[in-house]
Amino acid sequence: SEGVKEQAAMLTRRLQKNSNWITFRLAITRSVNMKHLIVTVTLLLAGISMPAYAQFAKAEDAIKYRQSALFVMGQHFTRLAGMAQGKIPFDAKAAADNAAVVESMSKLPWAGFGEGTNQGGNTKAKPEVWSDNAKFKEAADKMMAEVVKLNTAAKTGKLDDLKSAVSATGGTCKNCHDNFRNK
Amino acid sequence: SEGVKEQAAMLTRRLQKNSNWITFRLAITRSVNMKHLIVTVTLLLAGISMPAYAQFAKAEDAIKYRQSALFVMGQHFTRLAGMAQGKIPFDAKAAADNAAVVESMSKLPWAGFGEGTNQGGNTKAKPEVWSDNAKFKEAADKMMAEVVKLNTAAKTGKLDDLKSAVSATGGTCKNCHDNFRNK
Repeated sequence: SEGVKEQAAMLTRRLQKNSNWITFRLAITRSVNMKHLIVTVTLLLAGISMPAYAQFAKAEDAIKYRQSALFVMGQHFTRLAGMAQGKIPFDAKAAADNAAVVESMSKLPWAGFGEGTNQGGNTKAKPEVWSDNAKFKEAADKMMAEVVKLNTAAKTGKLDDLKSAVSATGGTCKNCHDNFRNK
Repeated sequence: SEGVKEQAAMLTRRLQKNSNWITFRLAITRSVNMKHLIVTVTLLLAGISMPAYAQFAKAEDAIKYRQSALFVMGQHFTRLAGMAQGKIPFDAKAAADNAAVVESMSKLPWAGFGEGTNQGGNTKAKPEVWSDNAKFKEAADKMMAEVVKLNTAAKTGKLDDLKSAVSATGGTCKNCHDNFRNK
């Protein structure tokens, strides 16, 4: 029935988003008859067999995507670092603009690190991204948290605030590169 | 004096942003004595001699930047196109999320097309980007305008609205690629 298809499609999408989070409970509770249950479980399994990077056509695209997002973010962060280090004249408007881009970019790369994207393209990512994924996610979260503070600091128009925030953010970049990226 | 330095620094920054827009008038009006005028003009000339891609360390970075921003945008747009074409199940939340990223990304690539970035990296950009720059800017503006509409359409939660907006936006992608990008 249409309802079953819709429910199965929804579950498949959820699995694509996070293959570790399997909502069997929901599927089973709602499966009021055997046919319903069979359809649901079949589609759940179809979902499980799909790669975690399903939103990308191939692993190479996921790799290129995360590298692109990190490169764009890096270029804007470099300008803030340049101001903090006195290499570029401090410009409050430019600082705020660059920090805003850094913050919006900081959310993107992680979708490109799905299971199966450890190879298939020119990547420097260490195997630990996947073998120690909890630590990798923690490192990503730390970066994003510092970037939120960086964006706030850049909007104050005070160079000293920017300096502190650039330093804290830079530390999270380094931490993640040291642990999860080959030279 | 400190005031002269500040004024000159400000003018240099303006020139870096747009080397075609030279505010001699402002500089000369404010130059109340000869020393002041000399310092200002010297720094104006220093600004003129800097490459238009000065916010990037080298042309290669500008090229990689614009390609990265366009690739990230393209990945998110592809998902919207997939929904519009029925290749991906329509998901109103995902559509809105992807369109928001497309809109924020659409503003970025253009800074990477400064004078002097026609070579120095692996670029497919045609010489017309620079030789017919007004037309290129017009094409970029059209794309950005359609992307704003796309973002609005994606937020309505109506697939038909998304379809129209994807089609209109896709036309502006194609137009710019046909005229300004080698195959």
